[in-house]
Amino acid sequence: MHLLTLEGMKAEEITVLLDSAQSFLEVLDRPIPKVPALRGKTVAMMFFEPSTRTRLSFDRAAKALSADTLSFSPSGSSISKGESLKDTAKTVLAMGPDLMVVRHKATGAPWRVADWTGIPVVNAGDGAHQHPTQGLLDALAIRQRFGALDGLHIGILGDIRHSRVARSDIDVFTALGAKVTLIAPRTLLPPTLDSWTVETAPDLDGLLEDLDVLYTLRIQQERGAESGFPSVAEYVKRFGVTSDRANRLKPEAVVLHPGPMNRGVEIAASVADGPRSLVTTQVRNGVAVRMAVLFSLLGGEQ
Amino acid sequence: MHLLTLEGMKAEEITVLLDSAQSFLEVLDRPIPKVPALRGKTVAMMFFEPSTRTRLSFDRAAKALSADTLSFSPSGSSISKGESLKDTAKTVLAMGPDLMVVRHKATGAPWRVADWTGIPVVNAGDGAHQHPTQGLLDALAIRQRFGALDGLHIGILGDIRHSRVARSDIDVFTALGAKVTLIAPRTLLPPTLDSWTVETAPDLDGLLEDLDVLYTLRIQQERGAESGFPSVAEYVKRFGVTSDRANRLKPEAVVLHPGPMNRGVEIAASVADGPRSLVTTQVRNGVAVRMAVLFSLLGGEQ
Amino acid sequence: MHLLTLEGMKAEEITVLLDSAQSFLEVLDRPIPKVPALRGKTVAMMFFEPSTRTRLSFDRAAKALSADTLSFSPSGSSISKGESLKDTAKTVLAMGPDLMVVRHKATGAPWRVADWTGIPVVNAGDGAHQHPTQGLLDALAIRQRFGALDGLHIGILGDIRHSRVARSDIDVFTALGAKVTLIAPRTLLPPTLDSWTVETAPDLDGLLEDLDVLYTLRIQQERGAESGFPSVAEYVKRFGVTSDRANRLKPEAVVLHPGPMNRGVEIAASVADGPRSLVTTQVRNGVAVRMAVLFSLLGGEQ
Repeated sequence: MHLLTLEGMKAEEITVLLDSAQSFLEVLDRPIPKVPALRGKTVAMMFFEPSTRTRLSFDRAAKALSADTLSFSPSGSSISKGESLKDTAKTVLAMGPDLMVVRHKATGAPWRVADWTGIPVVNAGDGAHQHPTQGLLDALAIRQRFGALDGLHIGILGDIRHSRVARSDIDVFTALGAKVTLIAPRTLLPPTLDSWTVETAPDLDGLLEDLDVLYTLRIQQERGAESGFPSVAEYVKRFGVTSDRANRLKPEAVVLHPGPMNRGVEIAASVADGPRSLVTTQVRNGVAVRMAVLFSLLGGEQ
Repeated sequence: MHLLTLEGMKAEEITVLLDSAQSFLEVLDRPIPKVPALRGKTVAMMFFEPSTRTRLSFDRAAKALSADTLSFSPSGSSISKGESLKDTAKTVLAMGPDLMVVRHKATGAPWRVADWTGIPVVNAGDGAHQHPTQGLLDALAIRQRFGALDGLHIGILGDIRHSRVARSDIDVFTALGAKVTLIAPRTLLPPTLDSWTVETAPDLDGLLEDLDVLYTLRIQQERGAESGFPSVAEYVKRFGVTSDRANRLKPEAVVLHPGPMNRGVEIAASVADGPRSLVTTQVRNGVAVRMAVLFSLLGGEQ
Repeated sequence: MHLLTLEGMKAEEITVLLDSAQSFLEVLDRPIPKVPALRGKTVAMMFFEPSTRTRLSFDRAAKALSADTLSFSPSGSSISKGESLKDTAKTVLAMGPDLMVVRHKATGAPWRVADWTGIPVVNAGDGAHQHPTQGLLDALAIRQRFGALDGLHIGILGDIRHSRVARSDIDVFTALGAKVTLIAPRTLLPPTLDSWTVETAPDLDGLLEDLDVLYTLRIQQERGAESGFPSVAEYVKRFGVTSDRANRLKPEAVVLHPGPMNRGVEIAASVADGPRSLVTTQVRNGVAVRMAVLFSLLGGEQ
């Protein structure tokens, strides 16, 4: 009915979505990459936080399924007139969309919208909490390369604490049987890790030879002194995915990044553009995963 | 040819539009809520003032009729380069839209655009002057509940002076036979009421038992000292639609609000979400009324 | 494969595009001005600089060909998070568009995007360098009036130095056989004119009787002291296309302006709205020229 979180999602459910996304990738390769599956359906895009890639990706997915979109944006809107999230959600609901895609800086906002509206809601990122379609597209990229995630060792590197991508990735990677190690200084780890079956490592170098997948998170340079590490130079020295470090990975190991990348900071340009990088595959998968999610929630098959 | 104002519109004309909107509501309830009536037509959305709900509503209406939209927005546009309204209108006209929806802070702007372009124009709000589709959707919500407006007593409450919604509502409610009372302090009434057949009341409490409909306007808290009343607390005390006041209304009386609502200011949350509230119905009617207006002006039937 | 510049484009190629645009003008005159030529194709609109008329025109052109659009805008996007142009281009590419329309303040940016992405790119304006669809629509407007450009004397008036419109116009006008005179004070001419076969004139008055076409550029009043001329009043005195000056043109001479116009500055309102003005024709041609370009690059005929 919704896609709000990957927490607790079973491997079987995930696999159904990934299989569906894989078949939509074939649709996207056709000369006319469009199917009439959701013709007449309307997807409301409720992005209360700025977004380029995620918004464009959902938009493209909706159009490839022949759905219409209703694009809400907070700037110059009733939001700036102080309207509550509830009233905004109920107002947009009354215009008759079939599904809402919600991004919001507050953890849990998409759950509230789901409660208030009663229509399917897709969480497109809530605070530092969850970003489930990102987790699915990441898992799909890894599955495409390795056939399965079961038994792989995946390192997630960087600011885990503030990352909704990391939380969704941990959920989906572990559900599919991967071993996950969080690589970060203590200051960039969540206060508690109790709810996850993960290991942690304070340094990258000791793990390089053991990883099948290195997932590099974006460093929020704009946080400055509150970034959780002394300086960008210090971060690069300890955690930057440089060319040298990439060379020490297993031959078949891959590197992922959710974008946008700070080239030369958390990832070297040569790695980002090199053969280990799945960055472009991730973006491409994003459209297909969102098609699968929209199709699944809107019961396109009936 | 245009929908610029409800002033002077005859009950027969209004009824034709409301009947048409009522039938479009049935279209919106279909599994595929879309008709090909305006396929190939292009509606230019010229919102010189920010807007969420009205813009989304027109957009949804256009798409439900299978029309294309051309979305003009003033930020970062030639407007900021000092282009005149006339040149902007003629430029957009030359791109071949079939109809323009115009919102502008200047009273009369949609009339000028209509003169300059010669294509159908819908006024989506001009200054404190008119907002005809809002008036129609409000009338439709009341007609749905009571069957007709004839003989109803409708109180319009709040900042009448600066409200285009109030002006359009007064026109349509009186044209359809309702008795209208404007409830506001002298400072929030227009300088002259000569052109309207309305009564006025300086207080809400004396009228509650007599009203069938209480239409609550939005208080522009951002006006501060120029708001026309001493303080928000003072306003709430005298004019706020609290739970107590709502309980004193006739059993079948309803409450409307054009949104966005300041909950706890001009309307209590319990009233906004309670059984008397037609707020959600108003928004839903908005899409259908705009479909009716676009369809009527673009001669969809030929 | 791309439309990046008009520099070096042969008269035959230009004529094919203008002929195609002319036939799309007929499509735009139909009751349903829409053809299914590019159904299922996706055009990514990558406007890194604000734009109203060019963006709307490409958008309208894409929709008239039944293509979908992916609208990227830099505000609140990953651009503001410091993402490189290359990463942005590759990210949008991975979402599967068939063509990119690129506007950027940096000269050459669309070439880089073309190199990086390998899909057709249309330059919608790069710095002060090129704006090829503007050049084509201007040439089409002149050809419609005179039958051909061969042998015409076209004056381009104003800030040539900072104008991408001027550069594209010079290329297309001279390729089609027109004689071009750049009319500007030395400070508004490019440092070197070696690559063009043009004449220059320091004053407008001596040329008026000889011109068939007077192309007036926009004065960027916002440049202030760096505008390249002492004052707006001084500019108007020497170069303003006043009613008096327009009366001294040949009877059949026409005036063009790329918009948005500063009425009363570089062009008098009476001239802009008078019978010599092709301003509206230019905008209308813009949609048709962009249809021709999109259709040509996306091989719509197969």
